[in-house]
Amino acid sequence: MFTLEAECEGARAGSLQTPHGTIRTPIFMPVGTQATVKAVLPDELHRLNAQVILGNTYHLYLRPGLEVIRDFGGLHRFMGWSGPILTDSGGFQVFSLAKLRKITEEGVHFQSHIDGAACFLGPETAMEIQAALNSDIAMVFDECPPYPCDRDYAANSWARTLRWAKRCRAWVDAQSTVHGRLHFGIVQGGVYPDLRRESAEALVEVGWDGYAIGGVSVGEPEEEMYKAADASAPWLPKDKPRYCMGLGTPPQMIELVARGIDMFDCVLPTRIARNGTAFTAAGTLNLKNACFRRDPGPIEEGCLCEACAQFSRAYIRHMVKAEEIVGLRLISMHNLHFYLKLMEKARAAILDGSFPAFRRAFVAGYRKHQEAEAS
Amino acid sequence: MFTLEAECEGARAGSLQTPHGTIRTPIFMPVGTQATVKAVLPDELHRLNAQVILGNTYHLYLRPGLEVIRDFGGLHRFMGWSGPILTDSGGFQVFSLAKLRKITEEGVHFQSHIDGAACFLGPETAMEIQAALNSDIAMVFDECPPYPCDRDYAANSWARTLRWAKRCRAWVDAQSTVHGRLHFGIVQGGVYPDLRRESAEALVEVGWDGYAIGGVSVGEPEEEMYKAADASAPWLPKDKPRYCMGLGTPPQMIELVARGIDMFDCVLPTRIARNGTAFTAAGTLNLKNACFRRDPGPIEEGCLCEACAQFSRAYIRHMVKAEEIVGLRLISMHNLHFYLKLMEKARAAILDGSFPAFRRAFVAGYRKHQEAEAS
Repeated sequence: MFTLEAECEGARAGSLQTPHGTIRTPIFMPVGTQATVKAVLPDELHRLNAQVILGNTYHLYLRPGLEVIRDFGGLHRFMGWSGPILTDSGGFQVFSLAKLRKITEEGVHFQSHIDGAACFLGPETAMEIQAALNSDIAMVFDECPPYPCDRDYAANSWARTLRWAKRCRAWVDAQSTVHGRLHFGIVQGGVYPDLRRESAEALVEVGWDGYAIGGVSVGEPEEEMYKAADASAPWLPKDKPRYCMGLGTPPQMIELVARGIDMFDCVLPTRIARNGTAFTAAGTLNLKNACFRRDPGPIEEGCLCEACAQFSRAYIRHMVKAEEIVGLRLISMHNLHFYLKLMEKARAAILDGSFPAFRRAFVAGYRKHQEAEAS
Repeated sequence: MFTLEAECEGARAGSLQTPHGTIRTPIFMPVGTQATVKAVLPDELHRLNAQVILGNTYHLYLRPGLEVIRDFGGLHRFMGWSGPILTDSGGFQVFSLAKLRKITEEGVHFQSHIDGAACFLGPETAMEIQAALNSDIAMVFDECPPYPCDRDYAANSWARTLRWAKRCRAWVDAQSTVHGRLHFGIVQGGVYPDLRRESAEALVEVGWDGYAIGGVSVGEPEEEMYKAADASAPWLPKDKPRYCMGLGTPPQMIELVARGIDMFDCVLPTRIARNGTAFTAAGTLNLKNACFRRDPGPIEEGCLCEACAQFSRAYIRHMVKAEEIVGLRLISMHNLHFYLKLMEKARAAILDGSFPAFRRAFVAGYRKHQEAEAS
């Protein structure tokens, strides 16, 4: 159940009850693709105040396989994470990762990227797998169209996504063992505002516990991403959470919070950490840079994360240059802290009515630095 | 200062005071080659009850370089480790890692394995670097002969090592800022017992705070390693600690404790963790094995480490197979716990007089399994 606690010029603060706890929104969800947030342990996620993490249906279905996770009663006990888990449906992954995929009305036939084995994912199997993973929030199985795609493709694709969504709904409704699990629909429709509206309205008619905006973060220009949100959010019910999938940079998240989005997930914090790059309020910092060689300061002045509390830029730079795992561990911790804290600050600003000022100051401060870097 | 607290049929329990704390022996020292114990943070080392860790002069001298570490007043603050640190002299590393090395009476000219830069390490520079690293225990600069090597080579080599040791002693004696730092000599002499004895006696005459047995773990058969210890230890003073460098497997360490050795360091616990292999009292366990796919038990039943307390073999196997960093993190934690705990148990057995029974039971239990594996 979702409770809308406050609104502030379009931005929303809320709370979402799940079987493994309540999530305060807006929220960033660290990505645990293969049943681990890369390089980070569950205890550390708790210390970071992570409220909910992601698991990927496609990856976990292929490896370790459902029978292993079923032995543990689901993903929580298997990976040692006691908080809420959201699983994607595998749709996006099948389209972007699998080999030799063939889309039929039934679902998608594909070859595993691990061993080439012939596999199938369809609406019912995707829901069944997520039930076995025992996630708190399960996503419908959708087709994620590429960018760019023409209007006919987008229209046919979302029509199929709607038919698949109805099959997912039927599968869920036929189950008796759901126990408070939430199910989210996914709005598609590409860059076509009328298709986005049609998609949103039709999905709302089917009825879901929350709504995701899909088909973003697929290579489109940033403006198209905002347009997709602008074209979808107004047609979604206010009393349900809204989740923008696979996004984004810090200012993108703030801009989307301003457009009424409540939930985000993104691999950037851990992915760029592995390349030695840290997020700060003044933009990204490449810790490989020679200027940090003797820098005794923390990654970000004033940051309270475990990396900044104990380690210098000089040390972390040395770890990155020497290709030591501790380097990416420390930057991953800092980056996740930064993303989680940013959403906490946005929430506080929404609750006390200062979100517009917070948004302006944050986005300007972040972009000013990035533009200075680029020039 | 070293205090011999108990002896039990050759095995010794003692305590060694250093500027950053007292070390209870026998002790295993985790290796932090590049200013990090691979994949493990200082907080975790404290939770593992690690008492002292190693740093490598050769690696740290080349990267990040002395001026960086001097900025931090030494290695402790640079890497965030508040306990004792032992640094090697770089001798062994120069002989095994550097390119185009040329040994002269002055020292060793070599090319950095990182960027090919021309470098030099000699007795005085090795002591100076270790002073800059501000380690609690510094090792003399020695020549480590290869295995096999003939008697002439071994004799000439240890004679030079002795001349270098005297130069190290002179350098240390000329300093006024040592503040309780300990300096250890290194016994060489290859597989020749009379050379080992000569080497030990001559080094004792020079006078050190502790004595290492070098030139072991260089590819010789296990029996030769024990012979080197047997040929060296009797000629070393009882009231000084004895350190067998770069060793070993769990039963090897116990066998060397039985021969009067007090200190060990070894990369095995973290190195084999990266390959998915864990140490247990019944030998090693390759967690990649298919038999662990659905195994809900911990790496080792009854183990109290953080990995065994929270994670199953099935999960850790999945992490290893999926090449996730959390896999090697968990196994590294377990393996370090195993090594540290083994030395704690050996110490307790020495103190209560049960070491011979402990030794027999442990070595037999470990080897029985390994032999069963091999057959």
